[in-house]
Amino acid sequence: MASLTGNLGVDYVILFKVPPQERAEAEAAFVQLVQALARVGLSTTVRRGGDTDSLLVFVRAASPDRLARHVRRSRMQDWLHGVRTTGPEADASRALDEEPVTEAERLRIVYQLITQPVNEGGAGVGTSSFAKTVFPLRDQAFNRAWIQKWSKKQFLEQGDIDEIRNKFGESVGLYFAFLRSYSTFIVFPAALGFAAWLLLGQFSYTYALGCGLWSVVFFEYWKKKEVDLAVQWGVRGVSAIEHQRPGFQWEFETEDPITGEPRKVYPYTKRLRTQLLQIPFALASILVLGGLVVFCNSLEIFINEVYDGPFKQYLAFVPTIFLVVLTPTFSSVLMRAATVLTDRENYETIDAYNAALVQKQFVLNFFTSYMALLFTTFVYIPFGETLVPILDIWTRTAQAVASVGGKTLSTQQFHINPQRIASQMFYLTVTAQIVNFATEVIVPYLTHKAVVKAHELHVRGPAPQEQDDADEAEFLKRVREECHLDDYDVTADYREMVMQYGYLALFSVAWPLAGCCFLVNNIVELRSDALKIAISCKRPIPWRADSIGPWLTALGFLSWLGSITSGAIVYLCSHRSQHGPEAAGKSTTTSQLTAWGGLVSIVLAEHLYLLVQLAVRFVMKKMDSPGLQRERRERYLMKRRLLQESMRGVDDEKPSIEGAEATDRVTRETLEEEARKSSIRGQGSVEDIFWQRQRGAQDTIIIGRRLIEQGAAAGEKKPTPSPMAG
Amino acid sequence: MASLTGNLGVDYVILFKVPPQERAEAEAAFVQLVQALARVGLSTTVRRGGDTDSLLVFVRAASPDRLARHVRRSRMQDWLHGVRTTGPEADASRALDEEPVTEAERLRIVYQLITQPVNEGGAGVGTSSFAKTVFPLRDQAFNRAWIQKWSKKQFLEQGDIDEIRNKFGESVGLYFAFLRSYSTFIVFPAALGFAAWLLLGQFSYTYALGCGLWSVVFFEYWKKKEVDLAVQWGVRGVSAIEHQRPGFQWEFETEDPITGEPRKVYPYTKRLRTQLLQIPFALASILVLGGLVVFCNSLEIFINEVYDGPFKQYLAFVPTIFLVVLTPTFSSVLMRAATVLTDRENYETIDAYNAALVQKQFVLNFFTSYMALLFTTFVYIPFGETLVPILDIWTRTAQAVASVGGKTLSTQQFHINPQRIASQMFYLTVTAQIVNFATEVIVPYLTHKAVVKAHELHVRGPAPQEQDDADEAEFLKRVREECHLDDYDVTADYREMVMQYGYLALFSVAWPLAGCCFLVNNIVELRSDALKIAISCKRPIPWRADSIGPWLTALGFLSWLGSITSGAIVYLCSHRSQHGPEAAGKSTTTSQLTAWGGLVSIVLAEHLYLLVQLAVRFVMKKMDSPGLQRERRERYLMKRRLLQESMRGVDDEKPSIEGAEATDRVTRETLEEEARKSSIRGQGSVEDIFWQRQRGAQDTIIIGRRLIEQGAAAGEKKPTPSPMAG
Repeated sequence: MASLTGNLGVDYVILFKVPPQERAEAEAAFVQLVQALARVGLSTTVRRGGDTDSLLVFVRAASPDRLARHVRRSRMQDWLHGVRTTGPEADASRALDEEPVTEAERLRIVYQLITQPVNEGGAGVGTSSFAKTVFPLRDQAFNRAWIQKWSKKQFLEQGDIDEIRNKFGESVGLYFAFLRSYSTFIVFPAALGFAAWLLLGQFSYTYALGCGLWSVVFFEYWKKKEVDLAVQWGVRGVSAIEHQRPGFQWEFETEDPITGEPRKVYPYTKRLRTQLLQIPFALASILVLGGLVVFCNSLEIFINEVYDGPFKQYLAFVPTIFLVVLTPTFSSVLMRAATVLTDRENYETIDAYNAALVQKQFVLNFFTSYMALLFTTFVYIPFGETLVPILDIWTRTAQAVASVGGKTLSTQQFHINPQRIASQMFYLTVTAQIVNFATEVIVPYLTHKAVVKAHELHVRGPAPQEQDDADEAEFLKRVREECHLDDYDVTADYREMVMQYGYLALFSVAWPLAGCCFLVNNIVELRSDALKIAISCKRPIPWRADSIGPWLTALGFLSWLGSITSGAIVYLCSHRSQHGPEAAGKSTTTSQLTAWGGLVSIVLAEHLYLLVQLAVRFVMKKMDSPGLQRERRERYLMKRRLLQESMRGVDDEKPSIEGAEATDRVTRETLEEEARKSSIRGQGSVEDIFWQRQRGAQDTIIIGRRLIEQGAAAGEKKPTPSPMAG
Repeated sequence: MASLTGNLGVDYVILFKVPPQERAEAEAAFVQLVQALARVGLSTTVRRGGDTDSLLVFVRAASPDRLARHVRRSRMQDWLHGVRTTGPEADASRALDEEPVTEAERLRIVYQLITQPVNEGGAGVGTSSFAKTVFPLRDQAFNRAWIQKWSKKQFLEQGDIDEIRNKFGESVGLYFAFLRSYSTFIVFPAALGFAAWLLLGQFSYTYALGCGLWSVVFFEYWKKKEVDLAVQWGVRGVSAIEHQRPGFQWEFETEDPITGEPRKVYPYTKRLRTQLLQIPFALASILVLGGLVVFCNSLEIFINEVYDGPFKQYLAFVPTIFLVVLTPTFSSVLMRAATVLTDRENYETIDAYNAALVQKQFVLNFFTSYMALLFTTFVYIPFGETLVPILDIWTRTAQAVASVGGKTLSTQQFHINPQRIASQMFYLTVTAQIVNFATEVIVPYLTHKAVVKAHELHVRGPAPQEQDDADEAEFLKRVREECHLDDYDVTADYREMVMQYGYLALFSVAWPLAGCCFLVNNIVELRSDALKIAISCKRPIPWRADSIGPWLTALGFLSWLGSITSGAIVYLCSHRSQHGPEAAGKSTTTSQLTAWGGLVSIVLAEHLYLLVQLAVRFVMKKMDSPGLQRERRERYLMKRRLLQESMRGVDDEKPSIEGAEATDRVTRETLEEEARKSSIRGQGSVEDIFWQRQRGAQDTIIIGRRLIEQGAAAGEKKPTPSPMAG
């Protein structure tokens, strides 16, 4: 029974739903499904589902031969699109021996066979309303070993990442590679931050410089590293291969300018018109989320720094509660709007769709994560005085409330407190990470357990496992459980890391310990993400990827913005701290001078950033990356081999002085005679005569020597007759 | 005699010098030269030079066959380096028919044969001290037709540029293509500038915005256009082919990581150490040229705006004369230093050397061209008051001089005059262009005539033309004249255009008519540059190029700087103009407020520029360029052809339901039995049994249907026994 921890050779499971009211249609669809799968060379076997109205269709490649042919075809397609450097090999079996098929490659190819439309050579599963879930089975033995290994290991190696890639595909592999690189790099700001916290305190120029430099280096390093990884994994350029999005609606067909094949088109102008809706969408997001931030922050400022009445310690929690409750509510509404908007933008390819969605999500996340801190940095600290009218509204409201209760309100003088940014930072990073960990790992696990339990209790008729063959019962039980798991979404994991990077780049100068905090978090994160894939999610479809895609743009944007916010925070906060609260609000001139200094320090910081970026890019460009070098070398060697083959026998020149054979020894007379002869015969043009005067190198040498002699003689002022005068 | 306007089939002329004191060595070198040329397949014939101590060695390819083989080899090399998409064709002659050899290609290949080192397959000419000048002969008929055509035509077409490229190579062709694009684009700022001059006056925000936008669009357009041209001319990627620089001194050899061939290396750290000398060099340049500018400008300001004594109208010319005399003197000294520095940096390749030299030249040109205007913009106008101490020095000096002469000096109150920038701009652009035209076309032409005349008078002994054969006399006279012409340097022409672009981008907001002025200049420039190549220079060696190289970086830098200077000029000058001279110097607060406003407008302008650049890049990326599209299409079709050839016969799958053949009709009993049998036989693992229960698609369908029925029955709460219970 040892093989029961394995997957019995199953590549994919299709969960087939049979709604009682559509039984006949479902049955017909089922027959079609099995036949379509058989047509593309996949074996099937069917079992009872977790409840009475579902079936489990197990799928695997019909034969190793058949699979090998598909692998080969897929690799040829890659070569055609420029992903692979090695061209077609006539001997298919040898090619597979040389470069064995990884599990990820097999699963990807089988998945494409199952889901691609029929006209593209697939079985077209996934478009019907009965068979919607197609998922690979988890490899329990591997997962167990993986979690054990990673929980013991202190530092991950490239080999560990390669293992992930071989198992879960390049897309997931790239995420773990990114996380590993990032977690290694973060040691520097963590150490620097700790040192700064000990020795320099907050708002230190040194820390801001170091952290900015670090962000540039990390960003440029990763850009290089991901290219390197893509080359190493043989996926460089896959993002250029376009996978048509299932929901895409086209208006007309044209010929593809590259491949010459028909291509479905949706007019660009129409899409642009929809895309313009992004502007009101962004404005609405700013308004809603920004309004919330201003509301809650001003209320909080009022309670903490102006209000001095009863229940102050309890009232202080009110704005936080508002923020905690309302932010997810609003942002989930906006996120749904973003999805609807992206759907309506009707992108042709999956990649374009995802990029557009990620972009909108990033904007929303940016607002929800950083708005409060940005408000503090750019409004509260430099222009705190302008908040007085808003605070007055609160004061009057509170006084009104108090007077209803027949009491008077005690308030205190409003002071701008630069520490506010640090405490916000602390709240946002530490608590957010704990909440994140809980929602990512613990909650899904418990929910899953509860769902399975509920399902078991809820099922009508005899439980399906009672009817299973004893040999298979345990296996089928496991499969039925996996059906209820969530899909793994790598985007969410990227988002978390990119947002963290943003906190570090933008605001860590206010609380230098953030780096340490993130370092600890990421060490856990690497393991908890592994745990998530191993335990609380379906096994992901092993998609390929050659870049972290839109997140790269996000990282670059955050790095740049980081230079600006750091510059502002360092100047403004240290200024405020030095001059103390009494300096603030003294006169408009002081305020203007503060703004002037702030602007200068922002401009300096930004340009220093851009300059350093140029320099780092220049240096990085000089350093050849091993992956690219290998790629170029392979290309070169392949071409040289081809060249040598095709040139063989064509280019065997004699090393003799061909075309310049030594003629008989010439004298002036014979040469001149011949020239005259040919001109008399009328055969020689001026050109022929010009060249025939000296036929071959030997003649040229003789005449040249004579001319040199004559020149020497002339130089000694003894003119001699020309050897060539007619 | 019609063929005498032609070149008698001569590809190159080598001017061979025979210094009287080294006659024997020269003779030996001459013999070697002719033999070396014969060895690589070149015919030679020798004639008397322009004076007694020189010979003219005429060179051409020995035979069309031999040339065809060299062409083919060169094209294969291109393919190997990724420049060409079409691979090796076995049939060499057919390939040359399909893609005929242009004159530029032939001349390039012959030049490389003549000059490349012997170990790289060339004759190694050009390294000896006797044969230094190797040049192609001008095509007089073509040149005459060219000048006539261009002088009549109003607008040049792409065909005209292609003609240049076929005749003079891609390097020169690209320059004319750039000049054509630039001259076409400049119509926009010219029209806008004229309108602004009429309607808005100087320092207009509208003009600054329009001009900035224009510079972004032009820069991005040209980046795309040059790639397009390179693809169209089949030279994309040639800049990556490295031509070893003759003067390169290597320290050790390593293996090239790409080609695996030995490669000569000069340690990078050593070069870096030399490169660090660029810092003192740049500082010295700033000091010398900046000092000159401050000196002359302050003197001029003093004379024009403070001094009010006698001879004012004459004295006003003094600083200009200083500037005109000293700037070229200083900058030629610095230019020589730049060349020495670049030599000592010991670059491996010609391209790297040229790029490094161009970079230094650009820096020097930048200082000499713009320093005065930058001084006015960023020192004189915003902080004019700080100049008072310097002006006082002049006042005191003048008073001292005056008191020696026994007179008193009359001065007037110092006012900051924003018009100063416009008049400087006028002086620098209009006069500079007239001077440029003169030095470029007229002076060299006259010099050349004078040199030839002097030479004729100076020559000792009988004039060589008296000894020539009558048929050849005219031809040889022409060749001897061409020997004395200057080399054509495309870099100087680029420099002129880039500097002009700089004036437009940086300062034209102060004098909007600059665009019109440049438009007129460029219409002349296109023709005068043609004239220069046709009349006053040697025919250029037809080098290839796929980009305007370091000038592109220069253009980008100037566009960016333009956004800053324009923002500053518009704010500061319009501010000064509005508030009038009396506002200036009132209080430090006003000055600080001016500085604050200036800084804000600079920051806004710069970020607007960067934002627009991002947007334009995004849009440009969306627009597919025809050249790149063609390249991709070619690559794709070539690969598909190869693929189809190699896949033929391998991939002929039967469309049958292979691996899923319909088995005999199964009943529950037979299936179960077989499973049991194989398990009893001990042959079947759990996996085998799992899959063998349903053998083939037909079985799956039958069982699936039965399960659906049962599920429906269970849904109606009528439990039936399982069909598979053991």
